[in-house]
Amino acid sequence: MSRIAIVDESTSEFTKDTSLSLQQLACEPCRTIMLNSREADVKIDAVILSTTSDIQYGSTIISEYLGIKPTISQRLDNLCNSGTNAIVSAYSLIKSGFCKTALVVGADMKQTKGSRLTWDVSRGSFTSPIYWAAIFAKAHMRKYGTTEEQMASVAVKNRKSACLNQNALFRKKITVNDVMNSKKLVEPIKLLDCSNICNGASAILLTNEDEAEQYTDRPVWIEGIGSSVEAASFGNVSSNLSYIQSTRKASNMAFAMANLKPKQIDIVELHDAFTIMEILAYEDLGLCEKGEGGKFVSQQSIAINPRGGLLGTGHPLGATGVAQTVEICQQLKGKAGKRQIKRCNNGLVHNMSAAGSSSLVLILS
Amino acid sequence: MSRIAIVDESTSEFTKDTSLSLQQLACEPCRTIMLNSREADVKIDAVILSTTSDIQYGSTIISEYLGIKPTISQRLDNLCNSGTNAIVSAYSLIKSGFCKTALVVGADMKQTKGSRLTWDVSRGSFTSPIYWAAIFAKAHMRKYGTTEEQMASVAVKNRKSACLNQNALFRKKITVNDVMNSKKLVEPIKLLDCSNICNGASAILLTNEDEAEQYTDRPVWIEGIGSSVEAASFGNVSSNLSYIQSTRKASNMAFAMANLKPKQIDIVELHDAFTIMEILAYEDLGLCEKGEGGKFVSQQSIAINPRGGLLGTGHPLGATGVAQTVEICQQLKGKAGKRQIKRCNNGLVHNMSAAGSSSLVLILS
Repeated sequence: MSRIAIVDESTSEFTKDTSLSLQQLACEPCRTIMLNSREADVKIDAVILSTTSDIQYGSTIISEYLGIKPTISQRLDNLCNSGTNAIVSAYSLIKSGFCKTALVVGADMKQTKGSRLTWDVSRGSFTSPIYWAAIFAKAHMRKYGTTEEQMASVAVKNRKSACLNQNALFRKKITVNDVMNSKKLVEPIKLLDCSNICNGASAILLTNEDEAEQYTDRPVWIEGIGSSVEAASFGNVSSNLSYIQSTRKASNMAFAMANLKPKQIDIVELHDAFTIMEILAYEDLGLCEKGEGGKFVSQQSIAINPRGGLLGTGHPLGATGVAQTVEICQQLKGKAGKRQIKRCNNGLVHNMSAAGSSSLVLILS
Repeated sequence: MSRIAIVDESTSEFTKDTSLSLQQLACEPCRTIMLNSREADVKIDAVILSTTSDIQYGSTIISEYLGIKPTISQRLDNLCNSGTNAIVSAYSLIKSGFCKTALVVGADMKQTKGSRLTWDVSRGSFTSPIYWAAIFAKAHMRKYGTTEEQMASVAVKNRKSACLNQNALFRKKITVNDVMNSKKLVEPIKLLDCSNICNGASAILLTNEDEAEQYTDRPVWIEGIGSSVEAASFGNVSSNLSYIQSTRKASNMAFAMANLKPKQIDIVELHDAFTIMEILAYEDLGLCEKGEGGKFVSQQSIAINPRGGLLGTGHPLGATGVAQTVEICQQLKGKAGKRQIKRCNNGLVHNMSAAGSSSLVLILS
């Protein structure tokens, strides 16, 4: 069967404030893609909007704004994990032969209700994600001796990378001391250990192998997809909080499908909503041994979160998975400008929702 | 490539009042399906929730309630047209080879915000769907001489069918006079020309050709899919309101894929949100000539809306497309009880959103 390619990608600036509506913001990266593909005989068959914002008929409104009359138009939500889920939907629509070309756009607003997990009674009144991040951090510190300084250095690294990303929310370096001295929110998590929800939109254009060449001479291929849903509520995520069960399963599945091993990956965009989650993800994606994540922060052999991660770039929930994919595509194509990583052949996107209750991993080449 | 089958289906009662939450309601038909498939070696790979209600992480919450850990979990919205869109997503996930088995559940509450099209500035303050229905009705009456009595007789027919449906919202016969004398809401639409938004949930289980036989000896095959998105706003739907452009396109596409003609269809579930829309759908699905829809109401050769349509059964927005599909499956399998239609080989589901701005057609055999 035909392989599926990402043939173009774009992202808006991620901001704290915006005068745009969600639908206007979502159109920004889509318009760039449509301008780029002017010369291709483009007919967009599917428009999939990933967002946690409550916008009825959103994908269809965006289609009208863009002057597109697609065959399929859908809005999709799976919390923070929405963007990568939308990519899987687009992949399936094309792979099944029902569509040839799909535009995936992730967009969200700072005001989204997706940041409060009010439906999860197992959390009691602890509805903010920081509570589960704190429990994960405590478990890892206890079991593997991970330190607060190691966590802080994740934020330092990602904020540093974000300085080279003109679309990032934060473009100022910070130090380990800055993190350690920032406001303690929930023991042991401090203000600068946390990503910030913001406004932003990212989009990619997907097509099949036959169509790909009319758009680009460097298609990015979706080689592996892994996904796992463990639970919705924190109480059912896992009895062992020293690892992210859903990430481990999704990662194994994606590597098996791509027929690759973690050491063959050159660049990773992973879900660092909190510094501890980057450390856990290293381990559960197989980039280092279990328990070694704290030390792995300082490694140099593989590029991790070169756009700045969620910590540096900001986290517009429904956009994040698409934004991560945009970065990997630009890096694989050698078009990441100042952030360009050398020898970049295989990339990995890791996205997850609420306490790692579900995860999705894409492997791109 | 493997064909895709619907191997089980179930629906809740459609009600005006419920003490259940959306997630509890959604679980009802899913549980019936899971009990039925106890003996099959069932592993549900995907759970897709269709709803216009604002429930973050809804498909994952439902998965947890059901004790399922799927690979993929997504909530999807495309207004009234959500349910059939969720079926296309499930179809694609299986057809692409990424999933083997998918549970699609449509569920909605009477209180959904999906019934007000507040985002469409082209409607001014006329945000309720009844305004566009009135304009369609006026156009059809003017151009083809369709009468208010013909429209009324659609409601009479569908309410009569609903009497045989134990899950229907309305189970009492009405007369043409009842409709004509019911409160005039927006000229020429009266109270009994309108469907009622209500609470309800319906679910289907899909799988591939290899797996189908372990669930049932009568799989229902998805033979044709057609879909078209014309616009989001009423101002851009069409300059000619005597037909539903998106329905016409979706219908042609579905018949071409199924390699069937309208006269080969034995049973139809179509989107009668208002009586005039059933008359338009007859024509735009190719069941009769353009302009003949008014007279076609009294025909007996093809079963139309045997469960009672939206007018008789009620209209829980995100559930409707799935509920329509449940009815066609039960009829094709000869399991529709008192409503059973004789010689039932090919069925059609027609679903649409906001003023026919998008439509989706499924052909099942």
